[in-house]
Amino acid sequence: MNFSSKLLEDAVNEFSKLPGVGQKTALRLVLHLLNKEQEEVNQFGNTLIKLKQNIKNCSICYNISDHSICEICTSHKRDKETICVVEDTRDVMAIENTSQYFGVYHVLGGLISPMDGIGPADLYIDGLVQRVSMGEIKEVILALSPNMEGDTTLFYLYKRLKEFNIPITTIARGIAFGGELEYTDEITLGRSIITRVPYETAMMK
Amino acid sequence: MNFSSKLLEDAVNEFSKLPGVGQKTALRLVLHLLNKEQEEVNQFGNTLIKLKQNIKNCSICYNISDHSICEICTSHKRDKETICVVEDTRDVMAIENTSQYFGVYHVLGGLISPMDGIGPADLYIDGLVQRVSMGEIKEVILALSPNMEGDTTLFYLYKRLKEFNIPITTIARGIAFGGELEYTDEITLGRSIITRVPYETAMMK
Repeated sequence: MNFSSKLLEDAVNEFSKLPGVGQKTALRLVLHLLNKEQEEVNQFGNTLIKLKQNIKNCSICYNISDHSICEICTSHKRDKETICVVEDTRDVMAIENTSQYFGVYHVLGGLISPMDGIGPADLYIDGLVQRVSMGEIKEVILALSPNMEGDTTLFYLYKRLKEFNIPITTIARGIAFGGELEYTDEITLGRSIITRVPYETAMMK
Repeated sequence: MNFSSKLLEDAVNEFSKLPGVGQKTALRLVLHLLNKEQEEVNQFGNTLIKLKQNIKNCSICYNISDHSICEICTSHKRDKETICVVEDTRDVMAIENTSQYFGVYHVLGGLISPMDGIGPADLYIDGLVQRVSMGEIKEVILALSPNMEGDTTLFYLYKRLKEFNIPITTIARGIAFGGELEYTDEITLGRSIITRVPYETAMMK
């Protein structure tokens, strides 16, 4: 691109480093910001800088938090004996939105992915093993995305955790609500038959 | 959304003010930035703040520039007697990329749009009229998008400029290269017959 201004070019380059943002989109976003007041642009920039400076990972569950221990881990309403293991903070948010889970979490910070050079040591797995080894955990729910990286991580976690002799469960995989049976892939459909549940359980609210 | 952190929520809200960025996309972008080094996040934020602080509009053509007069307006290689009128800096970039235009520009800063409350007074039209009134301009090319706002602006500019008795042209509208004749809308196709050009002109490189 032929920029009329170095400042503009720098800003566009910064934006186009973001995932899914190409040069044309970046230019559109930068020009949008340029039409705003200086005040608003400062706020945009400073909010991001402050975020990175002050954000913490909860020292228990590694979820993103403003404090050294997150709200879920400090809450008296949560069941501290059940740990739900997830990939990242987005999954915590998704599960919290369901209002169906009352235990605590453990955020891995990613999934094992040899293709991307991410091994078990790059994730917060030791922290999880340590939490379970304290002997107060009654169940570990592995809530990972059903893809290759998720399954690899699932397998690894199971191997690490089975010595503690507590139930290790995974979230149910099957046909999503509103999904059409005939368009469901064979693996999902096959699994959903093998892991079928009693009618009463399935229809529970 | 159920944020585990106020800092995170603030950053997501800032991003989701951008056009075409929803909350989920904003969250993805913020988490991407969180994985970067503090240095890089500072650079992102500060580049935007610096951009807004230091950017100028060229005092002649109103294009975005680092200096009070832009590179095109100061260049000795450009034909100062031909002005190409465009909506914004993106159009300048698009035309510069063609390497087919050697005159100078005039950036309106938008198009007349009564629906959005944008009238002629909100655009840099007086500056254009003044430039033309100096008597040194030999042609004004109106290069505006072929939509309702573009046509309204075209009509208004023509009315303001015709008293100076210089050629006022508009860029050709017609079927785009690679386009299919049978799928072209009737207005474009009809216009392209009325404004047909000699074979020799059309095939010129």
